[in-house]
Formats: sequence, structure tokens, C-alpha cells
Amino acid sequence: MSGERKEGFVLWFTGLSGAGKTAVAVHTEQELKRRGLRVERLDGDIVRKSLTADLGFTREDRDTNIQRVAFVAKLLSRNGVAVLCSFISPYRATRDWVRQEVTNFVEVFVDVSLDEAIRRDVKGLYRKALAGEIRNFTGVDDPYEPPLNPEIRLDTDHETVEESAGKVLRWLEQQDFIPPSM
Amino acid sequence: MSGERKEGFVLWFTGLSGAGKTAVAVHTEQELKRRGLRVERLDGDIVRKSLTADLGFTREDRDTNIQRVAFVAKLLSRNGVAVLCSFISPYRATRDWVRQEVTNFVEVFVDVSLDEAIRRDVKGLYRKALAGEIRNFTGVDDPYEPPLNPEIRLDTDHETVEESAGKVLRWLEQQDFIPPSM
Repeated sequence: MSGERKEGFVLWFTGLSGAGKTAVAVHTEQELKRRGLRVERLDGDIVRKSLTADLGFTREDRDTNIQRVAFVAKLLSRNGVAVLCSFISPYRATRDWVRQEVTNFVEVFVDVSLDEAIRRDVKGLYRKALAGEIRNFTGVDDPYEPPLNPEIRLDTDHETVEESAGKVLRWLEQQDFIPPSM
Repeated sequence: MSGERKEGFVLWFTGLSGAGKTAVAVHTEQELKRRGLRVERLDGDIVRKSLTADLGFTREDRDTNIQRVAFVAKLLSRNGVAVLCSFISPYRATRDWVRQEVTNFVEVFVDVSLDEAIRRDVKGLYRKALAGEIRNFTGVDDPYEPPLNPEIRLDTDHETVEESAGKVLRWLEQQDFIPPSM
């Protein structure tokens, strides 16, 4: 089947809330589908209903969340599916664990300055976290450990969603994960 | 790619503990792989580590267990994977819910008499359940609701594992889910 690889890959979008992880993932997903790949996208909103309804935001719960997602990503990626995961996933050790679990892990650091993330505050969560109304909020009272050597770094302070998605797609083309665009 | 279908299917092996669900699933899995299909097998031992470590055997926990498994089976089956799930899954309503969730649900009723399951007692669990040492044990102090209209019924009181797996494979061939054997 055209465009079909034996193995898939996992694009792991990590970054602060408001960095644009899901926006870039959705844009990338659409383009990958247009090119005929099998694609699945996972994020908190998608998995919370079925997979992680019981989990909160303590370090232990965050890790359990990622472990369940990694299990799904592992099964999909080894069966030829392109998997796009967008999770804050603030802990380096947890992301490194996912890297070892799945087929062809691609760490995509969706980098944004905290100031810009607070300025956007799409979901109104930073305001609440800064007011102390919610706890364990990454970037406010919970740490974010940036990737040391990500496959791809996006700078969403200065890039549009289209530009960021374009960087991801070009990287995938260069690494021969996907065929070049027409 | 030869032997590749656009959509996968989900073989859902349901039945009492000791019925032979996993034995038949393993045998079927090997043959499907031999024929070049993409295959994933899920059972309690496989998912407990990553997906359902927090769950016990109350009705609510059993249903949550199946919901998480169904989520995984849904994503795999719609991406062309043959998924083999063996879970007691004692409740009819839960199985009917899975049927609606996944692509090409095939209910395989692994039927065994309770007497025979107790006689086998591979894991020593019936003895403990009958002695009151463990609770909520299907067939002893928790109900098993047999399928009313399963796609496939296996009679493991009277069939070998090979015969049962053969019935599953023939059904899949007849329904054009897999190409005929050479």
C-alpha cells in the first residue's frame, strides 16, 4: 500500500500548557492523513474519558497517565501507525522511559516562554494557578524539565502553527519516516 | 502488502476462568502471524502491568478494565490490526458496549461447563473461591452471563485447543476477514 511503512513512529509533543502542542499536532495529523498514512492522535482530552478518568496531577498520577498512553502508543507504533501524543509530560525521566518503550520515538519540544504561555492562557488555568486556586500546575508550582536533546524543537513564541507543523513534516521527510510531499 | 486489509477486527474471547480463552487465543495468534497479518493479543496478564494495575474485581472495576481495553482495541482495529482479547468479561451489557466501540467485533464464546473448569482449576483459583478465600469470583459468587448470539461458540469440554482455534480461523476465512490458508 502506498505510503505504508512497516513500522510507525511516535511524535511526542511536550511543553507547557498553552505552548501549542495540540494545535501543532492537529495540523500535523491532517497533513499526514492527507499523505495517506495511518494516524492516531492522543491527548489529555481524548484519553481522559476512557483511559485515565481516575487520574489527577500529582507526580504519581502524571506518570501513571503517561504509562498508559505509552502502552497504547507502543502497540500502535509497532503496527505501522503514526502516533501523535501531546502531553505536558514535564518530567525528563518519564519521557526517556517512553522513548525506550515505543517504536521510533520522536521528541518534539514545543518551546514557549512562560510569559507568553501566561499571556495566552487559553484555558484560564494560569490565572487560577497563580491565584493558588489550582495546585501542581506545571510552570507555576510544579516543575517543567525541558528536553536536553529533542529530535525537534519548535519555538512557538515566534512561529505560527503552520510553520511549526512544517518543521515537523520536513524533519519526518528528511529522516525518511514519510515520503516527500508532491 | 499481501494479506493486509484496510480494517482489522477484534476477536473477543469471553468465558469462565479456565475455559481456555488465552490458550485458544495464543494458538490463533500464531496462525494469524504466520499468515502475515498484524496481530496484537491482550489479556489480563498483559494489561495489568501498564493499563489496569489499579483495578480489582468489583463490577465497577471489571467494567473500567474492559473500557480501557476496548479503547486500545478500537484504535488498533481501525488501523488494520487483528486484535485478540481474552477476558472473562462476564457481563453481557459490557460486551455489547465493546461491540459498538470497536471495528468488526467478533464475540467468541469459550464455553466450558463449570464442573470442567473447576476440575481443571489451572491457577488454583476455584479452590480458593469455593473456600471463601477470594470474593467476586465469576461462576462461584459472581455471575457469568453467556452470550446470546456469539459469532463463534467453542466447546472446550469436548474440543482440543487446536480444534477450537481451527473453528475460529475457518470462521474468519468464511467471512473474508483473512485469506484462505494455502
